[in-house]
Amino acid sequence: MKSRRDFIHKLALSAAAIPFFPSQFPLHDLNPLNNSQEGTVLRVAIMGLGGYGTRVGEAIQECQRVKLVGVISGTPAKIKNWQAKYNIPEKNCYNYENFDNIKDNPDIDAVYVITPNALHHDQVIRVAKAGKHVICEKPMALNAQEGKEMVDACKNANVKLLVGYRMHFEAKTLEVVNMRQKGDFGKIMFFQGLSGFKIGDPNQWRLNKALAGGGAMMDIGIYALNGARYMVGEEPSWLTAQETKTDMVKFKDGVDETIQFQLGFPSGAVASCLSTYNMNYLDRFYLNGEKGFAELQPSTGYGPIEGRTHLGKLTQPHTTHQAKQMDEMAGIIFDGKKPIVPVDGEEGLKDLKIIDAIYQACKTGEKLKLNS
Amino acid sequence: MKSRRDFIHKLALSAAAIPFFPSQFPLHDLNPLNNSQEGTVLRVAIMGLGGYGTRVGEAIQECQRVKLVGVISGTPAKIKNWQAKYNIPEKNCYNYENFDNIKDNPDIDAVYVITPNALHHDQVIRVAKAGKHVICEKPMALNAQEGKEMVDACKNANVKLLVGYRMHFEAKTLEVVNMRQKGDFGKIMFFQGLSGFKIGDPNQWRLNKALAGGGAMMDIGIYALNGARYMVGEEPSWLTAQETKTDMVKFKDGVDETIQFQLGFPSGAVASCLSTYNMNYLDRFYLNGEKGFAELQPSTGYGPIEGRTHLGKLTQPHTTHQAKQMDEMAGIIFDGKKPIVPVDGEEGLKDLKIIDAIYQACKTGEKLKLNS
Repeated sequence: MKSRRDFIHKLALSAAAIPFFPSQFPLHDLNPLNNSQEGTVLRVAIMGLGGYGTRVGEAIQECQRVKLVGVISGTPAKIKNWQAKYNIPEKNCYNYENFDNIKDNPDIDAVYVITPNALHHDQVIRVAKAGKHVICEKPMALNAQEGKEMVDACKNANVKLLVGYRMHFEAKTLEVVNMRQKGDFGKIMFFQGLSGFKIGDPNQWRLNKALAGGGAMMDIGIYALNGARYMVGEEPSWLTAQETKTDMVKFKDGVDETIQFQLGFPSGAVASCLSTYNMNYLDRFYLNGEKGFAELQPSTGYGPIEGRTHLGKLTQPHTTHQAKQMDEMAGIIFDGKKPIVPVDGEEGLKDLKIIDAIYQACKTGEKLKLNS
Repeated sequence: MKSRRDFIHKLALSAAAIPFFPSQFPLHDLNPLNNSQEGTVLRVAIMGLGGYGTRVGEAIQECQRVKLVGVISGTPAKIKNWQAKYNIPEKNCYNYENFDNIKDNPDIDAVYVITPNALHHDQVIRVAKAGKHVICEKPMALNAQEGKEMVDACKNANVKLLVGYRMHFEAKTLEVVNMRQKGDFGKIMFFQGLSGFKIGDPNQWRLNKALAGGGAMMDIGIYALNGARYMVGEEPSWLTAQETKTDMVKFKDGVDETIQFQLGFPSGAVASCLSTYNMNYLDRFYLNGEKGFAELQPSTGYGPIEGRTHLGKLTQPHTTHQAKQMDEMAGIIFDGKKPIVPVDGEEGLKDLKIIDAIYQACKTGEKLKLNS
């Protein structure tokens, strides 16, 4: 049985490289609960059982072709809880010391890394070396250098690296992207991304430079940046950025509270973005074109996205973002499906290169040219 | 009769310097049509009978205490039209050569200068020297140096200099300013001003550097800048700015098409603004505070302003902006009334100083410190 599974699994891996590999070809057991959905079921282990990991774990229960089969955590009590809740066998539970052994576990296809940012680099590379596909929560790493090493490691290990860009699968977001691609807005002129919230507990890892690698920009500002890229549909050619800090106690050295950044695109379109950990009521995308506009508000929250264009309200229905993301990622991994907006390591790397430049521009005040 | 009027007029001028001079003390004839409104009627001549001058002329007909009594124009046919339409006597009609003679005309209290920007400086100073109050359309001048000379000239001539900031009297705008002053939004964190439109006729004076002194920033971007100041309620301490030009033919050297600019305030609040002559659907103010928000959209158009806050829709009724402005300006001139948001020459000068800095920052890329 084990060798058959191994064989089938290898088949699946090689199939993943072929675009449009027919999803009607189920390679191993379908989750019996989800037999309405065709295609290979992606068997996932979650690494990092914190708040967002918990949310993803719950969302996977709604999935058509993803099953939560394993966990990796440094806290035995958490593992016990998850085992009980999701019926996870002991043999699929790992800690941060022994998870390299996952290479010998034929029942896990992929690991979703949902740990503090500073840990992504090493953990993703270890998962890749264990021969498993990796889904890495955003930001993919602390900087572009790390990101590049992760992309290379996954390429060398012949595993997929995907980044947890849940908005890339969100239906109203894609409705706007689709309209832009069809030309409904005409030539794109301007994008505005306001991404922020007022962060609570001052002791959380997101406010620890060593673990987060920065502040709001890494965590929430990345939505505005990433949104600018997929909404405008181009890679920026220049940027400027300005940092403002009002609370030196909460936002220590290297942890950004508020950053405004501006992007220019080869077409002449411009973007104006705000990233902040110190404001509420900020979750809006606005796209302006010669023939029309789109607005999403909220644009990135976990709940239903709402929006309208010059033609009326956006109508695509809400589904749990993380469930949609995971189902689509199964299609990307097993069927070579190409998402409308990329979610691979190269995509994550593009954001990291720009974030590096944003931090540099905040320090030097320079207008930086970007090479995409 | 003439000497009596002169005497009374001087009385009105000296009264203008006293704040809260009782408006119940009518100093000369009330317009019989407007006798429901107490206070001295302001008798205005309009200089410049173009599109906006025409709009102001019409709006004055709705005024309670302003009367259109004269015109200054270089086009005799226009003067004839206006005379017929508004029953303006020949003796109150001037051209650009002879309007200094207005000093001998006791039936005109003030001149509203609504000519291309480059002409404001000399015309305002000539009106001041003629001993008449001046209302000057925004931008007050081409730069702060000119603006300072205009402020000084009006001071020396002991006449009022007011700038045509119509939004400073707009009811929903003031509703938000009032809420901010009461603390309804808590500490102010962020202002966003998107001010732009797609400009038509490429041959109009607004696209001529010599007459306009610049491009969108002088004409429409000034709304976002001015709005940032009155919405945040502070003077900015730094700024950065970036210019983008996509149409080199329409927007010649020195005529800005699109400028993004960012302001920082002493409290730590920041503003992110867009000024453009090449986009539609852009007329929004957004104010973010620790306890709430306000949004105006449209925020500066001539029609009804619409808006909402965290507490609900703004409810103050729409009235013709220019009519409200003129009535309030009569109160400022004759009764020493203090508007909630200033409209005097010093206010205009503040904007010009910042516009000078915005153009400088666009060229040098520098983050500029501002002294308010």
